[in-house]
Amino acid sequence: MREIRLASRPAGWPTAENFEVAETPVPVPGEGQVLIRNLYMSVDPYMRGRMNDAKSYIPPFQIGRPLDGGAVGEVVESRAEGVPAGSIVSHGLGWREYSVSDATKVRVVDPAAAPTLSAYLGLLGMTGLTAYVGLLDIAQFRSGDTVFVSGAAGAVGSVAGQIARLRGAKRVIGSAGSAEKIRHLVDDLGFDAAFNYRDAPVRDQLRAAAPDGIDVYFDNVGGDHLEAAISSLNKFGRVALCGAVAHYNETTPPAAPRNLSAAIGKELSLRGFIVTNHNHRMTDFVTEVGGWLRAGRISARETVVEGLENAAEAFLGLLRGENTGKMVVKL
Amino acid sequence: MREIRLASRPAGWPTAENFEVAETPVPVPGEGQVLIRNLYMSVDPYMRGRMNDAKSYIPPFQIGRPLDGGAVGEVVESRAEGVPAGSIVSHGLGWREYSVSDATKVRVVDPAAAPTLSAYLGLLGMTGLTAYVGLLDIAQFRSGDTVFVSGAAGAVGSVAGQIARLRGAKRVIGSAGSAEKIRHLVDDLGFDAAFNYRDAPVRDQLRAAAPDGIDVYFDNVGGDHLEAAISSLNKFGRVALCGAVAHYNETTPPAAPRNLSAAIGKELSLRGFIVTNHNHRMTDFVTEVGGWLRAGRISARETVVEGLENAAEAFLGLLRGENTGKMVVKL
Repeated sequence: MREIRLASRPAGWPTAENFEVAETPVPVPGEGQVLIRNLYMSVDPYMRGRMNDAKSYIPPFQIGRPLDGGAVGEVVESRAEGVPAGSIVSHGLGWREYSVSDATKVRVVDPAAAPTLSAYLGLLGMTGLTAYVGLLDIAQFRSGDTVFVSGAAGAVGSVAGQIARLRGAKRVIGSAGSAEKIRHLVDDLGFDAAFNYRDAPVRDQLRAAAPDGIDVYFDNVGGDHLEAAISSLNKFGRVALCGAVAHYNETTPPAAPRNLSAAIGKELSLRGFIVTNHNHRMTDFVTEVGGWLRAGRISARETVVEGLENAAEAFLGLLRGENTGKMVVKL
Repeated sequence: MREIRLASRPAGWPTAENFEVAETPVPVPGEGQVLIRNLYMSVDPYMRGRMNDAKSYIPPFQIGRPLDGGAVGEVVESRAEGVPAGSIVSHGLGWREYSVSDATKVRVVDPAAAPTLSAYLGLLGMTGLTAYVGLLDIAQFRSGDTVFVSGAAGAVGSVAGQIARLRGAKRVIGSAGSAEKIRHLVDDLGFDAAFNYRDAPVRDQLRAAAPDGIDVYFDNVGGDHLEAAISSLNKFGRVALCGAVAHYNETTPPAAPRNLSAAIGKELSLRGFIVTNHNHRMTDFVTEVGGWLRAGRISARETVVEGLENAAEAFLGLLRGENTGKMVVKL
């Protein structure tokens, strides 16, 4: 079998040389474990942080060892009760063709309930749950709010914006990095307005798109987007700090937001979160978002790259914003 | 009578020329109003923002018109039931020797329950309530937390730190701008550690004072203090954004905090607040803090300047950090 290993750590933007494809024997499951043939694997922006040798909320990748991350596959050998061979499972040991996992660490999913199995990495998986928790629990979204989502064509942003629409937002505004993505947000996902952050200062474009201000900001970007949002937030506005993709490859600290003290007079709330501490919301999430999916009311657009050997390139493309919706690799 | 008027708006640091002392007739109370002879008036950092012609949470001062702010005085003429002549009241029309106020807008206070009447502007007044609400409601302080307070020798900070100590903090750390203030924090107010932010980078001094990190940061300063606190905050740490005195006289936006994206992985919460939206906590506050005051467990140190003609200089001194505890003007 093949797996992708970390070859070296990047300084700034990573390159293909930071990864290597290695051959290794298919592992053998022990008692209580399952052997999984992986069908799809996830690439996510947070993986960039794990390439650094820095203390964080999850341990860094190790040089010479395989990377890991979300994956969906079929159990081909089981030594655990409750997860028989043939089960389709999502789990956390991607970046390889076969994985051995403790059965307690996999989630058995229903292939019939999703348009493709890869949905369990996106709309019905961790990125969808991230959007759900961030919008509803962290930013305390309420019907009637005006919502701004940055990175709105990405895996998390596209779901956050759609949930806001379906939950009764007054207005949903998104930012993204190409004309095609802007079209997608408005025409396919039902955003009320969208703008290309490369076209003009974010602050000006956001003010034009939301002349009455915003109540909630779902932040996937940081930097000038966060500064613009603070400027446009109404009294008692709420920010879910979910990602800061503008900074992941920076080697010097960002100068923005320079207007954070405006949070005092406006009585703003800014809250960071990591989805792994909110797994108790999985049932609510699957019920509500799964219902919208079956009713055809929510889109699960994905960008699919074929072949494990192209996984590193898929990840690099993700950091460059080449995906629309969830970026997955089909093995 | 005399009153202090705004003569001109400052750019950057205000000066004595921005204020003028004016003579004006003693006003006459109408039906439902009281005439108050002011005994003490408050100067507060937030007044700096009101000198700008900028939209904010309270209207700006007007050129040629008297300033306003907290004051305590004696009712010398009453045309309102329930607030007879002789009552001692706190109210919002300071910066003048006599005020006429609607009786519904004054708070009758008990002279016997405070060491001096000026305490109703500080420890038992709005700055004390600010500390109480910010620490307990906004930052969600819990017994066992390690707490960092910036501007800790000021009116709000000195009370916030003492409440944290009295409510069972594991460790209370303060920053201030002079060796004498540092001594005061540790020797008189019972802080566990304190440092002078002028001595070395705040980040280094905070890390040395709190080697196990902090759980709560009460921010009166902004800028490098906030950046240092974000660096030292533990997982699920909480910040009350109360003031940003480091920025009030700046004419260019501050570059800090440059590490706000660390709030994601640490799942931090940052919340701005204005005390005027929390008046429902006044009874709890007076009961608890008043009890500590009567028991001699909390200090109400003040810096008192004599004479309305020195009020502007008192305010300018406050912005330069010349006060220890609440800065008041005795009329």
